[in-house]
Amino acid sequence: MKSNPPALSALGRRTAAPPISWLMQLTLSKPRLISLAAGFTDAASLPLGGIRRLLAQTLSPQTAGRAALQYGSTQGDPALRRWTARYLGEQDGPGETRRNAPPERMLITGGSQQLLYLTTEALCDDGDIVLVEDPTYFVFLSILQSRGLRARSVRMQPDGLDLSHLEEVLESLRRRGELRRVKFLYLVSYFQNPTGITTVFEKKRRALELLRRYERAAGHPLYLVEDAAYRELRFAGADVKSALSAKGAAERVIYAGTYSKPFATGIRVGFGILPEPVFTAVLRIKGNHDFGTSNLLQQLLLRAVESGQYERHVVALRRAYGRKAAVMRAALRREFPVGVDWPEPEGGLYFWARLPARLRSGATSRLFRTALAKNVLYVPGMLCYADDPFRRKPDHEMRISFGNATAPEIREGVARLGRALRICWR
Amino acid sequence: MKSNPPALSALGRRTAAPPISWLMQLTLSKPRLISLAAGFTDAASLPLGGIRRLLAQTLSPQTAGRAALQYGSTQGDPALRRWTARYLGEQDGPGETRRNAPPERMLITGGSQQLLYLTTEALCDDGDIVLVEDPTYFVFLSILQSRGLRARSVRMQPDGLDLSHLEEVLESLRRRGELRRVKFLYLVSYFQNPTGITTVFEKKRRALELLRRYERAAGHPLYLVEDAAYRELRFAGADVKSALSAKGAAERVIYAGTYSKPFATGIRVGFGILPEPVFTAVLRIKGNHDFGTSNLLQQLLLRAVESGQYERHVVALRRAYGRKAAVMRAALRREFPVGVDWPEPEGGLYFWARLPARLRSGATSRLFRTALAKNVLYVPGMLCYADDPFRRKPDHEMRISFGNATAPEIREGVARLGRALRICWR
Repeated sequence: MKSNPPALSALGRRTAAPPISWLMQLTLSKPRLISLAAGFTDAASLPLGGIRRLLAQTLSPQTAGRAALQYGSTQGDPALRRWTARYLGEQDGPGETRRNAPPERMLITGGSQQLLYLTTEALCDDGDIVLVEDPTYFVFLSILQSRGLRARSVRMQPDGLDLSHLEEVLESLRRRGELRRVKFLYLVSYFQNPTGITTVFEKKRRALELLRRYERAAGHPLYLVEDAAYRELRFAGADVKSALSAKGAAERVIYAGTYSKPFATGIRVGFGILPEPVFTAVLRIKGNHDFGTSNLLQQLLLRAVESGQYERHVVALRRAYGRKAAVMRAALRREFPVGVDWPEPEGGLYFWARLPARLRSGATSRLFRTALAKNVLYVPGMLCYADDPFRRKPDHEMRISFGNATAPEIREGVARLGRALRICWR
Repeated sequence: MKSNPPALSALGRRTAAPPISWLMQLTLSKPRLISLAAGFTDAASLPLGGIRRLLAQTLSPQTAGRAALQYGSTQGDPALRRWTARYLGEQDGPGETRRNAPPERMLITGGSQQLLYLTTEALCDDGDIVLVEDPTYFVFLSILQSRGLRARSVRMQPDGLDLSHLEEVLESLRRRGELRRVKFLYLVSYFQNPTGITTVFEKKRRALELLRRYERAAGHPLYLVEDAAYRELRFAGADVKSALSAKGAAERVIYAGTYSKPFATGIRVGFGILPEPVFTAVLRIKGNHDFGTSNLLQQLLLRAVESGQYERHVVALRRAYGRKAAVMRAALRREFPVGVDWPEPEGGLYFWARLPARLRSGATSRLFRTALAKNVLYVPGMLCYADDPFRRKPDHEMRISFGNATAPEIREGVARLGRALRICWR
C-alpha cells in the first residue's frame, strides 16, 4: 500500500528543527558536560524570595488577587504598559521617546520572541526579504526559514551595523527590482546575540534615514525592528538611546523589549511598541494566538516594577553578569591561543570568539568534536548566519555564553575549549 | 503627496478585528451593564488561597524554585505531561486512550487557543478548507479568516455532529474536486461554545471512520481536531470518552485540552496531543513562537495536579457552575417568552437561546439595541457562524453565559433580556 502524501502545510513542511535542539540534547545526555552554549540566564541571581513575596502580595487582597487569576485583555495590562512607557522614556532621556512610545501602541507578549513572530506574520508574505545583521539571532533566522522568507545580511562593525554596506544592499536590491519585497531591517541592538556588539545610536538614526530614502522605490514603509532583549543587562559603559528617540520613530520603529531576561526567564513576558498599521494587525493576530499573555505573570511584574524590586534586581544582575564576564574574559586571555580575538561586550550574555579563518568551528568540524570529547559545548558561529546567496557563510567563530554557567564552570569550560583549540590549531 | 501602500502582509491586511472586541468595549463603557456575553469564568470560585500556597511551595526549596524561574523546554515539563496523559487515561477509562495519548506526543501550550493556532499553521495553506460545526467557536473562525482559509459547516443535532450532513459535505467536496483542500474537522466536543451541546462518543468514532474513507480521494490524512476546553466543567450527566479512545486515534486525532478554564484563566496553560508528523511540525513552530510556555506557570500547575488540589478544585467548580446554570435555567423559564428554546447544557458556561426565526438578534438588530438600552449584553448568534456559501447565516440566536456573572446578575440580566424580547416580539 502506498502511503499518502502528508497533510502538512507548506509552512509545516518547511519548518526545520531548531539548530540548537541537538545541542540541548547533547547537554542532557552528557551530565559532565559544561555547556557554554545555552542562552540561559544566571540561576543563582534569580530573585526567588522576591518573587515569592510579590506573588503572595499579588494574590492576597481578595479583589485584586482574583483579577490576577482571570483573563486580562489581549493588549495587556494598562498599568504595566504605562510603567514601561515611562521607564523607556527615562532610559532614553531627553529626546523623542516619550512621544514615540505611548502605552496605547504597546503590546504585552509572551516574551519578546512572540513579538518577533507576530511582527513577521503581520509584515511578511512568502518570499519577502528581511534585512538582518551578519551574524544574527538564530531563532529569528528559524522564523524566516519557517515562513519562507529570505534574508539579506548586512555586515557589522565594532560599533554596530555597517551603514555603507546597508546602503549597498539596499541599492543592489533596488537595481534588481526586489526592494518591493523588503519589509524591515532587524537589529539586535544591545550586546547582540551572538557577537555582543552594541549599535551606537547615531547608526540607528542614520539606518532609519537610509530606509526612508528607499521607501519610494519600495512602494511602502520600511520598518526598523529593534530587538532590545539584552538592553538591561549592561555591566560596563553607558546606556545607548533606542531607535525610538530618533525623529520619525513613531512611524517606523518597532521596539521589542522583555522582562524575562532581566528578571526571570521562567516568567515569559515581553513587550512591543509598534507604529500603525502594524500595531493593530499584530494586536489582532495575537488575539488569534492566545488573546493575551498570562494575566498572573503580568500582575506579578506590575508589582515588581511598581515596588522598585525590578530595578533593584537589574542593578544586582548587572553586577553578577559583570563579574562572570570578567571571569570569562580572563579565562579567554589565559587559555585561548594568540590569534583568537573577540569584541569586548559591555553587557549581555555572550562572547564571540573569532578563530583564524582556516580553523573550522561548525557542528561537523574536528574542533567541535574535540571540544565535545573534552565535555564542553559552544554554539558554532555558522548557525548564526542567514542563508544569503551573496556571501559564503563564515565557519570559524564560536558563541560562548557566561549566562548560565557558574564562575568555576566558566574557568574550566574555557580551559577545555582552549585545549581543544590547541589540538586543532594546525 | 500620495501615500504609499501599506507594508502589511496579506495575513496582516486580512486579519479582522475580533468580533467581540466591540462587545468588550461596550462592557467597559457602561458600568451598569450586565454582561452575559463574555466567556470569563466565575471569579468567586478562583482558588486564590490555594494558588498562593502552591506558589509559595513552588518557589521555596532553593533548587526546584530556581528551576521554575528558568526557561523550560519548548515541549513543556515532562512530569506535567506524564500526569496529564495519566489523567486523560483515567477520564476515558478502558479503551485506547492510554496508548493513543502518550506524553511523548504531548505539547504544553499558552492555553488551548495557542494549540489551535499552531495546528492550523502546521496543516493549512491559504485557501484550504476546514470543516467546522455550525455554529462554532468564534475565535477559531477568526483564525480561519486571518489565515485565508475557508470553512465548510456541518449541522449539529442535540447529541452532536450530524453525521449524515458530514458525509454529504464530504461527498460534495469530493465531487467538486475540493477534497484535497480539506485538512481537518474541528469539533468543540464538550458543552460546545456556543451551543452547549456535547457530541456523544459514538459520533466521534464514526466521524473518524468517515474521514478515513475520504482520505484516498483527499490524497492525505484528514484529521479530527477535538477541542475539549470545557470538558472538566461538567455539572450533570456522565463524562463522555474523548476521540482519543477510538481505534486509529493515535494517527488521526489532535486533542486540545486546557488547565486554564477549570483552574484559573489568568494562568494560561493548555496542552495538545498530536499524531506525527503534525506533532513535530507544531513543536518546531512553537519553538519559533516562544520556545516554550512560562515554566513558572507549568511548575505551579504541576504542584496543583500532584497535590490533588487541581482535582478538588474541579469538583468544587462543577458544583458552582451547576448552581449558576440552574439559576440561569430558572430565569430563562420565568422571563423568556414561550417560543424561545435552548438545548440543556450538562456543563460549560453557556446557554444558546433560539428565538423564532423572524426575530433577528444580530448586532444591528432592534433586539440587540433594546437589550443594550436595558443594560444587558449577549453574544449575537450570527457571530458564531462561519462564512459558508452553502447556507445563509442564521440570525435569531443568542449565546448567554453564566460563567462570570453572579447569581443575582444572572437573574437580573435574564429578566432584562426577557423584557427586551417582549418589546421586539411582534
